Amino acid sequence: MTENKELYYMDGLSAPEIPEAGKPLPPWKETRVVGKPKTRVDAYERVSGSAVYPSDVILPGMLYGAILRCPHPNATVKKVDVSKARKMPGVEAVVCGADPEANLIWQYSKDYKDKIFPKNCRFEGEAVAAVAAATPYQAQDALKTIRVEYDVLDFVCDERNALEPDSPKVHEDGNEIKTDQYERGNVDEGFRQADAVLEQSYRTACQIHTPMELHGCVADWKRDRLTVWESTQGVYRVQQQVAEVLGLPMSKVRVVGNYMGGGFGSKLKAGKYTVVAAILARMAGRPVKMFVTREDSFLAMGNRPPGNMKIKAGVKKDGVLTALEFTATGTGGAYPAGGTSLLDFQVKELYKCENVRTEVTDIFINAGPARPFRAPGHPQCSWALEQMMDSLAAEIGMDPVELRLKNLVYYSQSGEGNPEYTSSGLKECLEQGAKEFRWAESLEKAKGASEKGHIKRGVGMAACMWFVGGGRPPSTVILKLFSDGSVNLNMGASDIGTGTKSVMAMVVAEELGVKEESIQIEHADTGTTQYASPSGGSKTVPTESPAVRDACVKVKRQLLDMAAGDLQTDAKDLTFAGSKIVSRTDPAKAIAITDISGLKSQAVVVGVGIRGPNPANKKIHPFGAQFCEVEVDTMTGEVKILRFLGAHDSGRVMNRLTYDNQVFGGIAMGIGFGMTEERVLDRNTGKLANRSWHDYKLPTSLDVPPDQVSSPVDMPDDEANTTGAKGLGEPVTIPTAAAVANAIFNATGVRVPETPMSQVQLCRLFDRAGKEA
Amino acid sequence: MTENKELYYMDGLSAPEIPEAGKPLPPWKETRVVGKPKTRVDAYERVSGSAVYPSDVILPGMLYGAILRCPHPNATVKKVDVSKARKMPGVEAVVCGADPEANLIWQYSKDYKDKIFPKNCRFEGEAVAAVAAATPYQAQDALKTIRVEYDVLDFVCDERNALEPDSPKVHEDGNEIKTDQYERGNVDEGFRQADAVLEQSYRTACQIHTPMELHGCVADWKRDRLTVWESTQGVYRVQQQVAEVLGLPMSKVRVVGNYMGGGFGSKLKAGKYTVVAAILARMAGRPVKMFVTREDSFLAMGNRPPGNMKIKAGVKKDGVLTALEFTATGTGGAYPAGGTSLLDFQVKELYKCENVRTEVTDIFINAGPARPFRAPGHPQCSWALEQMMDSLAAEIGMDPVELRLKNLVYYSQSGEGNPEYTSSGLKECLEQGAKEFRWAESLEKAKGASEKGHIKRGVGMAACMWFVGGGRPPSTVILKLFSDGSVNLNMGASDIGTGTKSVMAMVVAEELGVKEESIQIEHADTGTTQYASPSGGSKTVPTESPAVRDACVKVKRQLLDMAAGDLQTDAKDLTFAGSKIVSRTDPAKAIAITDISGLKSQAVVVGVGIRGPNPANKKIHPFGAQFCEVEVDTMTGEVKILRFLGAHDSGRVMNRLTYDNQVFGGIAMGIGFGMTEERVLDRNTGKLANRSWHDYKLPTSLDVPPDQVSSPVDMPDDEANTTGAKGLGEPVTIPTAAAVANAIFNATGVRVPETPMSQVQLCRLFDRAGKEA
Repeated sequence: MTENKELYYMDGLSAPEIPEAGKPLPPWKETRVVGKPKTRVDAYERVSGSAVYPSDVILPGMLYGAILRCPHPNATVKKVDVSKARKMPGVEAVVCGADPEANLIWQYSKDYKDKIFPKNCRFEGEAVAAVAAATPYQAQDALKTIRVEYDVLDFVCDERNALEPDSPKVHEDGNEIKTDQYERGNVDEGFRQADAVLEQSYRTACQIHTPMELHGCVADWKRDRLTVWESTQGVYRVQQQVAEVLGLPMSKVRVVGNYMGGGFGSKLKAGKYTVVAAILARMAGRPVKMFVTREDSFLAMGNRPPGNMKIKAGVKKDGVLTALEFTATGTGGAYPAGGTSLLDFQVKELYKCENVRTEVTDIFINAGPARPFRAPGHPQCSWALEQMMDSLAAEIGMDPVELRLKNLVYYSQSGEGNPEYTSSGLKECLEQGAKEFRWAESLEKAKGASEKGHIKRGVGMAACMWFVGGGRPPSTVILKLFSDGSVNLNMGASDIGTGTKSVMAMVVAEELGVKEESIQIEHADTGTTQYASPSGGSKTVPTESPAVRDACVKVKRQLLDMAAGDLQTDAKDLTFAGSKIVSRTDPAKAIAITDISGLKSQAVVVGVGIRGPNPANKKIHPFGAQFCEVEVDTMTGEVKILRFLGAHDSGRVMNRLTYDNQVFGGIAMGIGFGMTEERVLDRNTGKLANRSWHDYKLPTSLDVPPDQVSSPVDMPDDEANTTGAKGLGEPVTIPTAAAVANAIFNATGVRVPETPMSQVQLCRLFDRAGKEA
Repeated sequence: MTENKELYYMDGLSAPEIPEAGKPLPPWKETRVVGKPKTRVDAYERVSGSAVYPSDVILPGMLYGAILRCPHPNATVKKVDVSKARKMPGVEAVVCGADPEANLIWQYSKDYKDKIFPKNCRFEGEAVAAVAAATPYQAQDALKTIRVEYDVLDFVCDERNALEPDSPKVHEDGNEIKTDQYERGNVDEGFRQADAVLEQSYRTACQIHTPMELHGCVADWKRDRLTVWESTQGVYRVQQQVAEVLGLPMSKVRVVGNYMGGGFGSKLKAGKYTVVAAILARMAGRPVKMFVTREDSFLAMGNRPPGNMKIKAGVKKDGVLTALEFTATGTGGAYPAGGTSLLDFQVKELYKCENVRTEVTDIFINAGPARPFRAPGHPQCSWALEQMMDSLAAEIGMDPVELRLKNLVYYSQSGEGNPEYTSSGLKECLEQGAKEFRWAESLEKAKGASEKGHIKRGVGMAACMWFVGGGRPPSTVILKLFSDGSVNLNMGASDIGTGTKSVMAMVVAEELGVKEESIQIEHADTGTTQYASPSGGSKTVPTESPAVRDACVKVKRQLLDMAAGDLQTDAKDLTFAGSKIVSRTDPAKAIAITDISGLKSQAVVVGVGIRGPNPANKKIHPFGAQFCEVEVDTMTGEVKILRFLGAHDSGRVMNRLTYDNQVFGGIAMGIGFGMTEERVLDRNTGKLANRSWHDYKLPTSLDVPPDQVSSPVDMPDDEANTTGAKGLGEPVTIPTAAAVANAIFNATGVRVPETPMSQVQLCRLFDRAGKEA
């Protein structure tokens, strides 16, 4: 068996050296695992269907929950009659806002009763009642028997009208939530100094997450303990919220979320469905599975809200930006939900500009609440800013890449004290991307191609940064090295489809020298795994990987100490070599890791990894630049995206395969945002017009460019943390739509003000441009 | 909600002070939770049936396994024909030792193939083949169709004959495994110095564990990872063994054993059933549940082997022991299984005696292998030694309690260098027990009562020690304090029915001041909980509780540091007061634990508790003394045990309720050992004659004394570890049978040489005594 056990270790390069306890961990000098393209550790499970997602959980005696939702964009519930539903076949529990029989359970949630099933339904899809029945069909049938009397009220479903004096009011205090203002330098003076000043208006449509796996959970009580299998990006946040709402100790709420089928920001928190499932399960004394319908996912599970942006920019002939002014309105829907959050970030930070003024106003409308959506605010702002940059470049006759290179900055312009960035690879992204895309050559070629006929070719590009990177504490992970040399990693973080587990396995393999197949990962379970904040904000890899590395180092240090005892030498004299620990000075002194007597007697060596603090006075940001080539039919408005290149600086590339997956996925999502996706609220009824994957157009594999290139700028950010990663998930989707719009402009000379760049909009624009020409 | 959260903390006494980091943790001065009688944290689950034992686990698509066992005590397998079984309804996998189709799976276990289904079946019940089928009935039906050709061989099933020259040989090398010898002082000289020398022979019958929950598991593969839900005392040992046998990395074997229905030492390791279940599950591609039958539990799941003991003792008139000689033979059955392990320990250690000689011989017979059984060797030895002490007392006319008090010792007589005991409460057990039992008075009364008629009354007592106490490293536990002040404890130890979880919750409550209802415990899962050695040897509480206390202290230290930041003071100035941390000097400075900003921002505070080392040069032992009163009918041989008192020194009493449970449970088991239990192997066939709960007589609630008293000697052993516990589970069953035998002697003047003290044996003895008289 000993031979087998040695197979768990890699030969060749030795595991990296470790410093003495207490001394800082140096960056990896060279890596043998990290950075390579590695298949996911759970690829088989994901591809074969054997992975158990929360949707797959089936418990003995489980019921199926369903939620009745308000069909009106604005209404008051006068009466709910659930008497028929109670008698429907298979029904075991019914609950609604004004239900006396439910009081027993509402005692657990007296502060939240009116919030879960509110009297005022301020958007289509608000929860009104819920049932649990033996089958999903019986649950839906029972919903249909619930009679609700509504006072149907006037509504406003377009934030562009919501501040008009006669607009219906979503809340008593009116529809304006707040206006944020920011200013630096002297903007008016900046405009005066400019050689060219442009002013443009942009709008982005509302995009809906609608991930593959629906929102939902299975809730199960064992006496006073609630276990929830939830499709979530963060089990600990769900735990905290459910405990808060139900008045339970957090220790009595266990949330498990091993696999999850996409969230993109919409599954960062518990849903009403979570709480309602728990309540129904309590009432029925049986587990309840509660997944929303696909229709519900469009109505009430969050969105990237629309943005209306005015941007004014001044530039000198040499490309120096002299002033930026940005005014925007946004909406989070019927409740405060960050409708304008981070809308002006790129304007304030991406390019060097001394004079900047922004104003963003957040507005209520009668529509489903927003939730964070892959780079909240950023693709919207990028849509405006990056088209403006493109226009400025055209205006002064400068290459758009060149214009951006002219305005690079290496410190935070809006942050207090103007802290430096730990690193910025924006220059490298622009230069490497342009080179690999053959930007100059393509630009030249496109010019010629666009001369003739109605089929035009063009290239475009856009750059971006993400507002925060490098991860942050707290995070704790536990690594157990078993006596046969195999390891178990225990961490709280969710793998939201990005390959977190695979990257962490690589960190363990790198640091311990074990093969990935002998590494087992337990994660995303508040009952049994360690604490992690939700997987969001592109922070999972840079937050968790340093904690994992720390755990490995702590295990290695113990092994060296133990081996020093066995070999009767000093631990400082020892180093790792494949499956052995060897003396640096005396080649005869060597011991197989699995032969270390301390490991044998302890059976397990435990390393507790802690995520250290970030550098105190610096800011960490990922950067990127994307380039694309399109073919536009100016007669039909059809756009073919022929090729795309993403050059991103996200610090160290941890796994080249999952890295590229993220780049391509982000571009695909950006294409959806730019080309096809739009929540359509009917102006006459306030109701959602497209509530299915048939009517709401997500990009499919046929909409993805046939020629996609990921060109990583692999710059480990050793100041950020001990693995040098900065985060990739969100930046990759920020500049995509703007790059396409710029390519269309390059091809046709027409600026596209709104997403989606539908054939209808483009035909109208081309038509108008033709008439103007 | 804040009010609710404060409810998680107890008012009144403050949480204990903690030393600075690195300084040793002082013993608890006074406790407010530990030591109290507390209902088990899982009482509801256990009583309501909602606790999920491995026997209760049902997985989708699960098959049921069954093992075909050899019906002969000694036979060679010539041929196994499983062709019919393969075609039986519902059968999905069949495996046997010589099965070519199984080769695919045997590659995982080439070193163990011949051990799992051996060609030589050396005991009735040896595994020969196994099947997995859709229902348990189909599996049993399929077993019946397997045709096995055996060469049936001669057998020996009584170790008393097994060393005779013409005895059949269990193994080629003969039946004697080894003989251990020990000697100190000059035994012959000791006997010469004695005023009285007695020589006696004793035998104890073979006792079978047969716990309520049968031995078994559910095995489930997910690709290359095996999960086993096993009824076990130690998940990590099962993990290690299954990984070893199947050639898997330990990280890929997850063993879960949250609840288990009794083991008493027979579930310390993986069973063949575990490995076979895993192999069948792999072959069938479906989970397999494999629990042995009740009959199998008698045949092949271990036993306390029989012991044959000669004891010779010399004593002076003043009660001083001058010499002890002990010769024993034992058997572990057909394989080396510690048939004589610890058989002479009490003789070597319990009483002060300068001249001691022991010799124990271990022998093979054709019977199911032994496994450790609640205090291995000790009740057997106690049966001989404690009756001898009683006889010596009678011989020199001294009170038996007095005789024992004369021979107290406070250091190890057989340990190298004669290390001191950290503590011994044997004196206290004897004195407190005698006082509370009204020993002297009862002895006097019994004398009178025994004069008249065939109904005799008598009292008897016996003392004991357990060979190791105080627990030992390694153990790691993790405590998570959530932001609402509730906590989650993660530990690897199994709760084998003794209340481990409850005791650990009390340690957390004691140290943190939280109420037990806000403490959640995760345990006994190699995938997600921390390392613990198996729960056996009465070491679980003394091993785990100091680790738990350490984890709590580490959490408290972090809270104090965080609070010091919030209150702008030094952590040394702060102390715990109910739900708050307060300044010692400035009453205005106080903060609720749940308001500490560090806790809020981190969301969780993690404490990693480590089990520290034991004192280097001392030995730790639990001690005890038991007293009982019996009524004996000398005409029928019937014995009524009227009352029993157990006085035990197990260090600190952690939970008075579970403590008493263990004392009463140990006495009940000792009564079974002494009065009714006996494995009967038919001398003509070598087959087990009593293989059911009908024929093998376990004590029931009707056999338990109506008057039972637990009289703990609560002596925290602060030298042993930081909670002062020494271990209770095993010592409580050691002296029981001997105490009853001594009471019978006291009542009738008849010494009982053998267990069980059946009516048949007693009638014979009384009859013989009557004839002699």
